[in-house]
Amino acid sequence: MVNVKRVVLDVLKPHQPNALEFSQAIAEAGVDYRVKLIVLEMDENTETVQIELAGSAIDFNAIQSVIANMGGSLHSIDEVEVNNETVAG
Amino acid sequence: MVNVKRVVLDVLKPHQPNALEFSQAIAEAGVDYRVKLIVLEMDENTETVQIELAGSAIDFNAIQSVIANMGGSLHSIDEVEVNNETVAG
Amino acid sequence: MVNVKRVVLDVLKPHQPNALEFSQAIAEAGVDYRVKLIVLEMDENTETVQIELAGSAIDFNAIQSVIANMGGSLHSIDEVEVNNETVAG
Amino acid sequence: MVNVKRVVLDVLKPHQPNALEFSQAIAEAGVDYRVKLIVLEMDENTETVQIELAGSAIDFNAIQSVIANMGGSLHSIDEVEVNNETVAG
Amino acid sequence: MVNVKRVVLDVLKPHQPNALEFSQAIAEAGVDYRVKLIVLEMDENTETVQIELAGSAIDFNAIQSVIANMGGSLHSIDEVEVNNETVAG
Amino acid sequence: MVNVKRVVLDVLKPHQPNALEFSQAIAEAGVDYRVKLIVLEMDENTETVQIELAGSAIDFNAIQSVIANMGGSLHSIDEVEVNNETVAG
Amino acid sequence: MVNVKRVVLDVLKPHQPNALEFSQAIAEAGVDYRVKLIVLEMDENTETVQIELAGSAIDFNAIQSVIANMGGSLHSIDEVEVNNETVAG
Repeated sequence: MVNVKRVVLDVLKPHQPNALEFSQAIAEAGVDYRVKLIVLEMDENTETVQIELAGSAIDFNAIQSVIANMGGSLHSIDEVEVNNETVAG
Repeated sequence: MVNVKRVVLDVLKPHQPNALEFSQAIAEAGVDYRVKLIVLEMDENTETVQIELAGSAIDFNAIQSVIANMGGSLHSIDEVEVNNETVAG
Repeated sequence: MVNVKRVVLDVLKPHQPNALEFSQAIAEAGVDYRVKLIVLEMDENTETVQIELAGSAIDFNAIQSVIANMGGSLHSIDEVEVNNETVAG
Repeated sequence: MVNVKRVVLDVLKPHQPNALEFSQAIAEAGVDYRVKLIVLEMDENTETVQIELAGSAIDFNAIQSVIANMGGSLHSIDEVEVNNETVAG
Repeated sequence: MVNVKRVVLDVLKPHQPNALEFSQAIAEAGVDYRVKLIVLEMDENTETVQIELAGSAIDFNAIQSVIANMGGSLHSIDEVEVNNETVAG
Repeated sequence: MVNVKRVVLDVLKPHQPNALEFSQAIAEAGVDYRVKLIVLEMDENTETVQIELAGSAIDFNAIQSVIANMGGSLHSIDEVEVNNETVAG
Repeated sequence: MVNVKRVVLDVLKPHQPNALEFSQAIAEAGVDYRVKLIVLEMDENTETVQIELAGSAIDFNAIQSVIANMGGSLHSIDEVEVNNETVAG
């Protein structure tokens, strides 16, 4: 089975919900999700953030919905790690 | 449960209370808080400091109050780490 | 026996399938494959990605087929690691 | 209890007492103090030194007195680490 | 006894055999050889590659033959590690 | 008790005794001294060397004598580490 | 007793004996010698190499003879490490 272990996303978001609330909402989408958010650029109405999400099996569609629901826009998927765990590596 | 593990804050503060007293006040807000403060820029009446706060479950609202009570102003949340600890990761 | 342990590939791909789907398809080609994809450059219709693939015995021909089947084009093999495992090193 | 674990200080000092004697005097102020001094700039009559002081519970007021007694002038507190050790972190 | 443990070679090679096949052929020359190849420069008909070869006792003459047999040309030996293992170090 | 654990010295020395002999003479001054010497600049008659000396309790006056006896001149003390070992840190 | 543990030498050598043979000859001078050679500059008739030699007790005079016997010229001693091992450090 192929599991997504880590994604690094470039996201444009409004100032509200703030970086903390944004991170928390993403983390709530998976029972072992770990989220690191870094603010890359701050404009008048928006901010560009890099979100690194790690977990044992990330559900990417769910993450996309969470981001969209908070008014965020996924600009790009910058990094991906996926492991085939059919056998122990 | 989603816990905030680490935040990096950009704060503008008056020279008094000094960097040490400022850090101590923040650390007092949580029984296992660890605070690292770095002075980034020093002006005539104010200084810009980066505050990195780590803990097992950071209460961000409490931190904001502590900063405001010392005359500090939270300029931005630069980094956030939150973990969903519903199951052991 | 000589096994391929790691390759770093430079690949030009269309935007669809996206970076995540692309990585997943490659990972599916081997039971212990680990894939890291980084988007290096994004153009109007295509993106250049670096794909690092690790495994205990990578089948390079199979990987080339997977990439071609998704409309990708292998530009270069940038790094290779191969180990002779006739005896334990 | 909140303990100061580490401070990085920017200090202007006369050439005498020299960097070694200066460091020793600071270390004598606490039973487990560890001092690292780096000379940043050397002028005709003075030198600017960075002093990193670590300990389990630094008494900052005592350190300020030691520095002043040797003719040094504390220019700035550049970094601070404080831990709340009410519970084990 | 003095054993060669690691060499870093600068090699000019034709595009075929490709970087993967080239690495595999070198690894086949010794039962515990580990090969890392990095493509440094790609020209119309040739490519310059850096080959790092590690093993418990590298037979350098054999490696030179393998490279020559594939149309490669050894430009320089850039790094060498040799250990005298008469006694355990 | 306050012990000097490490000093980094900037020393101007004649070419003879050479860097090796110079280092050996310093190391002989203390039963557990470890010396690393790096030549920073080489002039016609002199060379500037950085000497890093570590030990459990460095006797700085003895080191100064050794350097002077070999024709060296201590330009500056660039780094100092001293630990108060009244209690185990 | 003061032992030389490591030296970094800057050596000018003819192309023959090559870097590999040069390293091997140095390593043969001591039963636990480890040699790393890096080619720094390659000219028409000569090459400048950096030789890092490590061992439990390096005999520097013997090394100088080995280098001279192969037509090499010791340009400088760039780094030295010596330990006083009268007591365990």
